Amino acid sequence: MWQATEEVLAPIAIGAGILGTGGGGNPYIGQLRAREAIRRWGPVTVMAPEEVPEDARVVCVGGIGAPTVGIEKVRDLQSYHALRAIEDYTGERATALISNEIGGSNSVEVLIAAAQAGLPVVDADGMGRAFPEFQMKTFFVYGVPCCPMAIADEKGNSVIIRETITPHWAERLARATTIQMGCVACYAVAPMSAEQVRRTAVPNTLSLARDLGTAVQRARDEGEDTLSAILHTCPGRVLFSGKVVDLDRRTTAGFARGALSIEGLDAYSGQQMVIDFQNENLIARIDGEVVCTVPDLICAVASDLGEPVTTELMRYGLRVTILGFPAPELWTTPEGLEASGPAHFGYDTEYSPLKVQAG
Amino acid sequence: MWQATEEVLAPIAIGAGILGTGGGGNPYIGQLRAREAIRRWGPVTVMAPEEVPEDARVVCVGGIGAPTVGIEKVRDLQSYHALRAIEDYTGERATALISNEIGGSNSVEVLIAAAQAGLPVVDADGMGRAFPEFQMKTFFVYGVPCCPMAIADEKGNSVIIRETITPHWAERLARATTIQMGCVACYAVAPMSAEQVRRTAVPNTLSLARDLGTAVQRARDEGEDTLSAILHTCPGRVLFSGKVVDLDRRTTAGFARGALSIEGLDAYSGQQMVIDFQNENLIARIDGEVVCTVPDLICAVASDLGEPVTTELMRYGLRVTILGFPAPELWTTPEGLEASGPAHFGYDTEYSPLKVQAG
Repeated sequence: MWQATEEVLAPIAIGAGILGTGGGGNPYIGQLRAREAIRRWGPVTVMAPEEVPEDARVVCVGGIGAPTVGIEKVRDLQSYHALRAIEDYTGERATALISNEIGGSNSVEVLIAAAQAGLPVVDADGMGRAFPEFQMKTFFVYGVPCCPMAIADEKGNSVIIRETITPHWAERLARATTIQMGCVACYAVAPMSAEQVRRTAVPNTLSLARDLGTAVQRARDEGEDTLSAILHTCPGRVLFSGKVVDLDRRTTAGFARGALSIEGLDAYSGQQMVIDFQNENLIARIDGEVVCTVPDLICAVASDLGEPVTTELMRYGLRVTILGFPAPELWTTPEGLEASGPAHFGYDTEYSPLKVQAG
Repeated sequence: MWQATEEVLAPIAIGAGILGTGGGGNPYIGQLRAREAIRRWGPVTVMAPEEVPEDARVVCVGGIGAPTVGIEKVRDLQSYHALRAIEDYTGERATALISNEIGGSNSVEVLIAAAQAGLPVVDADGMGRAFPEFQMKTFFVYGVPCCPMAIADEKGNSVIIRETITPHWAERLARATTIQMGCVACYAVAPMSAEQVRRTAVPNTLSLARDLGTAVQRARDEGEDTLSAILHTCPGRVLFSGKVVDLDRRTTAGFARGALSIEGLDAYSGQQMVIDFQNENLIARIDGEVVCTVPDLICAVASDLGEPVTTELMRYGLRVTILGFPAPELWTTPEGLEASGPAHFGYDTEYSPLKVQAG
């Protein structure tokens, strides 16, 4: 167990910005919101999955919407309201919370609700990264029901998605609700058991985000290479490096969708990388050839300071390095790939696991 | 009390088609569906509002969507599923049902759910006509909460609109859900008390629809004037008569919207009426001058047989007579007009009550 205090928020924001593969919401705004929550209600206890009591009732909370909208329409305390709504609906009180995704501001959304509710959080999440659609969680891939779930906005509106015939229908109805709520909302899913959490969550991801951010901060302080610090903490590799020369980004149907073009510099001079995204980076090609796809992580960081560059902050002219990390194992099984692989997003590309040199 | 048997469905369909002012869903499809339900589960007891027991819990059920879609995507038993969903959410069992609106197929939607659930229905509704938006019900105008309400589709999906800051937000969230469900769904609102029903419902409208239809049938059988039969049963007047020469009808944002142009014949020769509609007919103008607006009823019937012509069946070349009927009194108070008058629909027109000669 450890305490999520004000001090760990900055490293978590960096680490979750990297793991978010572009999405999950703006990490800095999340950091500021979590700081206010912890100042107001105190730090949050973080439990390893194996420390979760057998009789625990663990509620997954998170944000939903387009990250482009999230930087203008900042979330308030609606994750807490979604939590109370699902407790009210199910008649069960949560004894712990868990993050929906470790990417971006969603890594700390759970801390905000937990601080307000006075509950611990589990050091784990439902993705080990970020993904754009609600149903794309390891929980649901491995048999946890995705409904009932509650959605709440900052105004005081709340909706329960009570029952759906498929997990994708939950996403569809939740997305339509979110769009009406202003493209930014929070949700909470009916409680899970300790067994469900241990079997279906991606473990130790909040501490991984913290450790990644701490490594970046230390490298900056000591004038060392931030990229090496990242790759030393979380095994992966550099996919490309260059300058953003084009960005086609639209906020449509509740998502930020588009493509990013990077002109190679240094070792990559003369080459061009194009990355398609739907909130998160989905597929990276160099001169037309696929080099990395979902569910593996495609992460953009500023080439100098290792600062993650999320979808809503990406802009022309930035010098970025694109890192690739292998997906958590729960995503690379046949059922995991069916829910999160390139075909799910409409790409006629086989998933080919990213090769990373053994550390 | 009376029994809604198979035999009364045809007259109810005619009467509700007239009172529906164009909307409420296709009455003939509603009639066929209700016939199947009554054959399967038996006739439904209809209670006058004053016969509702003091401890009754009365659930309002109805259809939501665009009537243009409703004739291609026929409703199934989702009003029953919505009823069960709201009972499950509130923990209260309904002891009677009430119609959301007496217009079109919604007049019999309540009979379908009641037959299946084995419950009586109240001879009353929340409009005394049809209106396009969920929150436009006399119940909600006079203080009944519009949430929680449940929405269900024919596939097995269901959503609870749990809490909204205004009744209009309930409409907004319900509409977005309905669009995802295929633009056709059914809903059920949390139970009302007998006192709420008696104070806020438009009374005796199911029997009015039945009586209107019976009068039309009798006039047809006896070769008498169907229009006179209608106006004799329900005080109103002829606004216009002619041939449909233009119809601009789009299914958009979950509604059938547009305008209808009628070229005058006989006494109206040389004049043109234009009617704007949003599922229901909203405002009628003759040569640009307003002659009738919501909440008064603007009803199109075939000039020969008095058959109501609803929004989804309107077409070029039809000979129609446009009838006007005064709105139920609950709509003509200041709070009633605020929710249902021309200004609510964006028209810069004062409501001027339709003048009808005393019968």
